[in-house]
Amino acid sequence: MKSDIEIAQEAVMKPIQEVAAAYNIAEEDLELYGRYKAKLADSLWEKVKDKPDGKLVLVTAINPTPAGEGKTTITVGLGQALGKMGRNAIIALREPSLGPCFGIKGGAAGGGYAQAVPMEDLNLHFTGDFHAITSANNLLAALLDNHIQQGNELGIDPRQVMWKRCEDMNDRALRNVVIGLGAKADGMVREDHFVITVASEIMAILCLAENMEDLKARLGQIIVAYSFTGQPVTAEDLHATGAMAALLKDALKPNLIQTLEHTGVLVHGGPFANIAHGCNSVRATKTALKLSDIVVTEAGFGADLGAEKFLDIKCRKAGLKPDAVVLVATVRALKYNGGVPRDQLSQENLDGLKRGIVNLEKHIENIQKYGVPVIVTLNSFITDTQAEYAYIKKFCKELCCEFALSEVWAKGGEGGIALAEKVLHTLEHKPGDFHVLYPDEMCLKEKIYTIASEIYGAVDVSYAPAALRALKNIEDMGFGNLPVCMAKTQYSLSDDQTRLGRPTGFTIHVRDAYVSAGAGFVVALTGSIMTMPGLPKKPAAENIDVDKDGRITGLF
Amino acid sequence: MKSDIEIAQEAVMKPIQEVAAAYNIAEEDLELYGRYKAKLADSLWEKVKDKPDGKLVLVTAINPTPAGEGKTTITVGLGQALGKMGRNAIIALREPSLGPCFGIKGGAAGGGYAQAVPMEDLNLHFTGDFHAITSANNLLAALLDNHIQQGNELGIDPRQVMWKRCEDMNDRALRNVVIGLGAKADGMVREDHFVITVASEIMAILCLAENMEDLKARLGQIIVAYSFTGQPVTAEDLHATGAMAALLKDALKPNLIQTLEHTGVLVHGGPFANIAHGCNSVRATKTALKLSDIVVTEAGFGADLGAEKFLDIKCRKAGLKPDAVVLVATVRALKYNGGVPRDQLSQENLDGLKRGIVNLEKHIENIQKYGVPVIVTLNSFITDTQAEYAYIKKFCKELCCEFALSEVWAKGGEGGIALAEKVLHTLEHKPGDFHVLYPDEMCLKEKIYTIASEIYGAVDVSYAPAALRALKNIEDMGFGNLPVCMAKTQYSLSDDQTRLGRPTGFTIHVRDAYVSAGAGFVVALTGSIMTMPGLPKKPAAENIDVDKDGRITGLF
Repeated sequence: MKSDIEIAQEAVMKPIQEVAAAYNIAEEDLELYGRYKAKLADSLWEKVKDKPDGKLVLVTAINPTPAGEGKTTITVGLGQALGKMGRNAIIALREPSLGPCFGIKGGAAGGGYAQAVPMEDLNLHFTGDFHAITSANNLLAALLDNHIQQGNELGIDPRQVMWKRCEDMNDRALRNVVIGLGAKADGMVREDHFVITVASEIMAILCLAENMEDLKARLGQIIVAYSFTGQPVTAEDLHATGAMAALLKDALKPNLIQTLEHTGVLVHGGPFANIAHGCNSVRATKTALKLSDIVVTEAGFGADLGAEKFLDIKCRKAGLKPDAVVLVATVRALKYNGGVPRDQLSQENLDGLKRGIVNLEKHIENIQKYGVPVIVTLNSFITDTQAEYAYIKKFCKELCCEFALSEVWAKGGEGGIALAEKVLHTLEHKPGDFHVLYPDEMCLKEKIYTIASEIYGAVDVSYAPAALRALKNIEDMGFGNLPVCMAKTQYSLSDDQTRLGRPTGFTIHVRDAYVSAGAGFVVALTGSIMTMPGLPKKPAAENIDVDKDGRITGLF
Repeated sequence: MKSDIEIAQEAVMKPIQEVAAAYNIAEEDLELYGRYKAKLADSLWEKVKDKPDGKLVLVTAINPTPAGEGKTTITVGLGQALGKMGRNAIIALREPSLGPCFGIKGGAAGGGYAQAVPMEDLNLHFTGDFHAITSANNLLAALLDNHIQQGNELGIDPRQVMWKRCEDMNDRALRNVVIGLGAKADGMVREDHFVITVASEIMAILCLAENMEDLKARLGQIIVAYSFTGQPVTAEDLHATGAMAALLKDALKPNLIQTLEHTGVLVHGGPFANIAHGCNSVRATKTALKLSDIVVTEAGFGADLGAEKFLDIKCRKAGLKPDAVVLVATVRALKYNGGVPRDQLSQENLDGLKRGIVNLEKHIENIQKYGVPVIVTLNSFITDTQAEYAYIKKFCKELCCEFALSEVWAKGGEGGIALAEKVLHTLEHKPGDFHVLYPDEMCLKEKIYTIASEIYGAVDVSYAPAALRALKNIEDMGFGNLPVCMAKTQYSLSDDQTRLGRPTGFTIHVRDAYVSAGAGFVVALTGSIMTMPGLPKKPAAENIDVDKDGRITGLF
């Protein structure tokens, strides 16, 4: 069996201008990055902005398991299938982070015969957007510490610096550091922290900004620290806005690549859904809606994280209305959720499936609360049995949602036609009635409780003293009307990653909170979720290589 | 008077394919990055490698002063002038670092009507090479600390970690840090240091590597730490080589842009000359020599740093033979070297000039020691007087070197024809006899003494105990045959930046040393030189902005 990278490297790509032409994008509106990647120039938006919007389909999933779900694979495969059926469809994805690429996860371009290509480029540097975000983030940090060093006119309290340095790398040793050691010329000593670039507020800002003016306004509003008198100090106070925006000038433009079957893929922005808001950029999604009749997009991890944030943060802020949600599961992952050990997932186990399907059930119920029709799809594996499929199909029917099997990993777009037909049927015959889960004016603790109880199924929310103080301070500053971005483990509906299936009777523990005033949301940190991942005992990096002709191996 | 960025933004650039075509580079051998930037594909080298080499002209300068010298401006202007005269010439420069761009220095694309464009792109991110180096550097650091965290099989001594994290930013607060604080899962506590990306050994390796195989061999040889038993631990021991090489796959390819007059400019690699070896890549220089009859290249800071390293490290390692050296000075900088205060540099002052010209004298003598003919040029300023020019011209004649005035800042290539004529005359009539300053087999302390006495004019070299231990250890490991890369202030021939002109009777203080086994040189740290710059009280970043149409201002 061929590996993903082997399939990707065998692909015969079309020049990106040809892919663009299928969406009526002229070459003058492209900024080429090699033969197979391009950025969409600002001039394109000006040309298409008054066109009617296409339909918006969100792909999400059950809670991820080590058994694998393949949400990106389904997203890409569904786009390919719609293309095969002669529909004008486009895909909108997030850009992968370098960090996990060298850790456990590997790349993030789909899999098998449902991939976005060139996959090596996509997984390594791509068009440099994340590096631009890292630079802007760390410029702001350098300006902040330099301000303190050079006399601290703003009276920044070094114990209350909120802004963290970042790096697009899994590097646990940088989670907690002390900086500014040495002599007088080497800065003021203070505790600091690095986060992974995808968790930077600048990543969220880039993904939520409508244009350069909006980007600059948001950058300026970032609260970097509090003064000795408790006043917020912003990036604008440090005169950092313009230089950060200059660094982000090109990163703000969406990137276009293609699937193995030449469907267009807009790849732009990449916040994780466990520690950030988990969606690709508003700018890419809005452009996609102008370019195409059907936009297939994706939000990170399970529907409790990515989809909730897509619906309650991104759609709320950008005025988007999703028309359908595709919920991805696998027979194996459902059995894993039912307590079946990893080494027994290949055997038929209807009892295990029955115990684990409650995870799917909860996610279906959750999406239905937003008034959007749900289509469940199974990413098929060779070890699945017909009895297992039949059981899941019947289960979905009882919950009033469509069901289709997907075989896109093995068959590409052809294997996604069954799912595409259900999606098209839904778009044509099941008009949604999208609404967000909670209103802006609800107070922050109520918002957190609403998400915890309605989406996670928690009975209660507990707060550490630091979290209570932070939430009060955030509301006192006038940010109580913002939506809440929950930072929570992706592995469970609860904040305890060992609780699989559909846990009940649990409490969500909020240990801290802060406002991302530029992004426009309040982050609540739950459980032991961390904003800087680590590397495993045997990092994936050890298997990656490149030969003398530049051919990369070991990236998956 | 127009600013550099205004002149650059008014330029009508040619599509980069047209610029390439003038050097017989086919479009299939280019990897486009937008309309005006391209990387040279590996296929190009295969096509040109057997062609005869052109002539190699190095541009260097007197010690830099706040008065400004304009070495890059002269380099670009000379290339433009040769083009205007119908010669087939190409320019080879280093890529600018982001850090200084936001500090004091501003951009590094030349100035006035002698600039490489697009200057904003060149100064911000460019084609991502430096970000790739930062990523590879920090992946190695993460793998190292992860190895310690996960059981430390190699027995790495946390007190003897040599590898430092890096960032392309001036951030003094990261010079001395403690990492790995927090809980067991957050790493082992140890002291660490960040350097600016241009000081990373990976930057030097990228610049000295002939091809991907050579790059990988060098990356693997990097000594990242010593074990508890004193054995060197390499990047290859950490299985990091392949993944680092994959990150550097595209960064290894030289970049092509153009001057305001459409001369080709290869811009590739960018180590600083005070804390690193200060030259653009061997790969770019060798390609340039195949593409063109005359290659005009540049090394960083004054001739005591950039030129010495170009000649003793880069030429030695890559088998290059420079045919002529252009030495850049200004009347103002010479007067500043003679003790004339900054606010009086605009007035004629022959006595001050006489006192300061000894700096130029020493650099001329130094270059002549390498057997390469020298052409002195003055980057003209409107405040210079004819009497000052006449004095300098006569001075050069007495030292047997050619002299020409350059007016490229104001007039572009036209203003460089006088210099170009002297360069062409030299190439045709003054064959050089290049030889390095010291042989490989000389011991390290002798090499350091040779550079210090012959080039800097020192009477002695003193060593801190740490430096003596390090040099002994480096020779014991078998690296005594490597050349030495001196880290020294750029502002003085001595290691004390306040001593201008031609200081005498001074001692060079070596405080530490380490081997860059992958790059292939030994670094000696002198005086108080630092490998991570800081930002000034009013950083240049505060003036940088970008408007809603993406037009950048305040970058200079």
